[in-house]
Amino acid sequence: MGSLSPHRRKHKVAVIGSGNWGTAIAKIVAENTASNDSIFERDVQMWVFEEKVEIPKNSRHYDPSSPLCQGPQNLTEIINKTHENVKYLPGIALPENIHANPSVVDAVKDSTILIFNLPHQFINKTCEQIKGKILPYARGISCIKGVDVTEEGVSLFSETIGKTLGIYCGALSGANIANEVAQEKWSESSIAYDPPHLDSKAPSPNRSPSASTVDVVHFEHKDVSGRLSQVKLQPLPSEYPPVDHAVLKTLFHRPYFHIRVVSDVAGVSLGGALKNVVALAAGWVDGMGWGDNAKAAIMRVGLLEMVKFGEKFFGATVDTRTFTEESAGVADLITSCSGGRNFRCAKLSIERKQPIDKVEETELNGQKLQGTLTAVEVNKFLKKQGLEDEFPLFTAVYRILEGSMSVESIPSYIER
Amino acid sequence: MGSLSPHRRKHKVAVIGSGNWGTAIAKIVAENTASNDSIFERDVQMWVFEEKVEIPKNSRHYDPSSPLCQGPQNLTEIINKTHENVKYLPGIALPENIHANPSVVDAVKDSTILIFNLPHQFINKTCEQIKGKILPYARGISCIKGVDVTEEGVSLFSETIGKTLGIYCGALSGANIANEVAQEKWSESSIAYDPPHLDSKAPSPNRSPSASTVDVVHFEHKDVSGRLSQVKLQPLPSEYPPVDHAVLKTLFHRPYFHIRVVSDVAGVSLGGALKNVVALAAGWVDGMGWGDNAKAAIMRVGLLEMVKFGEKFFGATVDTRTFTEESAGVADLITSCSGGRNFRCAKLSIERKQPIDKVEETELNGQKLQGTLTAVEVNKFLKKQGLEDEFPLFTAVYRILEGSMSVESIPSYIER
Repeated sequence: MGSLSPHRRKHKVAVIGSGNWGTAIAKIVAENTASNDSIFERDVQMWVFEEKVEIPKNSRHYDPSSPLCQGPQNLTEIINKTHENVKYLPGIALPENIHANPSVVDAVKDSTILIFNLPHQFINKTCEQIKGKILPYARGISCIKGVDVTEEGVSLFSETIGKTLGIYCGALSGANIANEVAQEKWSESSIAYDPPHLDSKAPSPNRSPSASTVDVVHFEHKDVSGRLSQVKLQPLPSEYPPVDHAVLKTLFHRPYFHIRVVSDVAGVSLGGALKNVVALAAGWVDGMGWGDNAKAAIMRVGLLEMVKFGEKFFGATVDTRTFTEESAGVADLITSCSGGRNFRCAKLSIERKQPIDKVEETELNGQKLQGTLTAVEVNKFLKKQGLEDEFPLFTAVYRILEGSMSVESIPSYIER
Repeated sequence: MGSLSPHRRKHKVAVIGSGNWGTAIAKIVAENTASNDSIFERDVQMWVFEEKVEIPKNSRHYDPSSPLCQGPQNLTEIINKTHENVKYLPGIALPENIHANPSVVDAVKDSTILIFNLPHQFINKTCEQIKGKILPYARGISCIKGVDVTEEGVSLFSETIGKTLGIYCGALSGANIANEVAQEKWSESSIAYDPPHLDSKAPSPNRSPSASTVDVVHFEHKDVSGRLSQVKLQPLPSEYPPVDHAVLKTLFHRPYFHIRVVSDVAGVSLGGALKNVVALAAGWVDGMGWGDNAKAAIMRVGLLEMVKFGEKFFGATVDTRTFTEESAGVADLITSCSGGRNFRCAKLSIERKQPIDKVEETELNGQKLQGTLTAVEVNKFLKKQGLEDEFPLFTAVYRILEGSMSVESIPSYIER
């Protein structure tokens, strides 16, 4: 039924956020829109928080004699002139079809695919700014790592975005370091995308499939505390190619950035948060000099607690294999337990016989460890549910952080 | 029916082999038989290949003035006097209930549990020596890593042992380094044990349940090339506690050596072989300086090829989770890709721009890499089956070894 015929309209892509990861992702999608111009509009909008910057010495365009280097300039103008994000991703040449835009409202206008890639503390504010100003049938992908854990429950950033904007939003996560991806060092990533089946619902022939008149589908979501929320979703007009797994792979997959698309949004999002808790334990065990086997054992036990956490609190929507077989699961865990900052600081805290927050201060230049924060949040949540004993490794990490347990007792504590 | 009442007879345990891993395993089981004397006879027999040795300087009993140190002595006598395997596990105090025995026939006599832990080239000869001289209802556990791959098929060492001796034999494998386990550094291991359900068949009341008169159960096994072999198994007499997962955990689990018992013998055995092939690829990628994410990606891809290999050639008997969740799978893979010799030599071969067999020569002191051997064997087998393309990473490793492919092309070659 016409599925092989070309669609009349192309997808317009906007990236919301332009830190090092946002810019690296914009580079990838712009490379792909340029080479797949039957599906995508060539130009990619990238929202940049406007600031005045000077071209730094590690930029490809540093030249004291150039007019560009005669004092501070708007970051968006520098990016659009030099095709380099000189502040957040210096040294990397960006495709010319990336357009830095200081207005987030203008950047998302008419875009069918919105890619969110900004620090999680800015999610709510940014979504409020663009609410009602996006295409109502747009689709989102959140590249924001982790989840939001409170005593009450666990919520996914992709869901927060989706609910605020009234759109469906998937997630991208994997064993990726922004700068390495930008340098085209090979890595893999996972995209999770599983919207309700809107497109199986054929539009009535007497209605035009434009945004204002299509049927609205109610998409129900029950969160971990049982709260039911309802999102009204609009089907994508049939003039566009459907946003499916194949289209998302076309948009994100590169020879140096291999993508697997799955349906498990909760699993992909949880992996990026919980692995940091495991990395702390792996760092401590490594710091104790217990050897590679002990470290591998901790990682294995941690992986199974990640699986259990997903199954227990997200039920049937979680697929065990996301954790054990995908980049966002086992591979990201391996990377984080190799040289990630949570692992490193935990290891140093044993070697230097210092509390981890002391190591954090001296090593991270004011930045905070994600793992210690997540460990505390996860513990508060588990305690409230009365389930600390069912997650002995997560609980051990919390107790070691609060000083009520020693690293030496991890093996006996997790023994089953 | 009486399952809670004590059994009249206890299990006698023999360890066949006394290298560093054999001796470390003997230490573990002897510690457990001593503290579980309602199930096991206290004393553990350990077959030692007799040789004359002098007490080395790193022994706990090195003392030039002692009579023990006045020239070469029989290794079995030294072990039984000093409770130390001065040649293969010097410096480690062994439990006094280990009895070193120079006669393999005498060591296995009357033993109900036989633990095989010897280099694989000695399996056939040793099994032939004890054939017909063991209890016909004995049960075996093979601690021999890996599998035997030929062009014709893949066979498990546990099956070779079981078929030769006419007994059921399970397998133990995990992320373990013998010397670290002997030093009681914490690690985990997997035991796979899944005999046909002999014990559900109640012995006829007019028959004594002794070895010569019990029913014989035919245990059929179809190997990868479709050959059907039949092993006649004898049920364990009911005077003994059944050899089940709980009894095996009691025999092998220690505070420093955590055991999970599963049913998937093929998976546990394959893990120990195929991880070495993946470790070569991980070493090359690491040697190229592609970073931790690329290494994690290779490990993830390798893990999935391990799963696929198991499912394809061992069908329903293999459980995916053995690879993705157990010590013999993902944890052993992680360890091997951290500091294992296959990983190290592959990495050095890139850094030194030398062929890997050259690195092997200079680094391994005459020993051979298991990974290169397995990669060649696995490729021969896959080629014969016409399935090279379905295992792109295994195939890439082989082609890089034979010089027909470069490490640089791994990502594009495995791209799906």
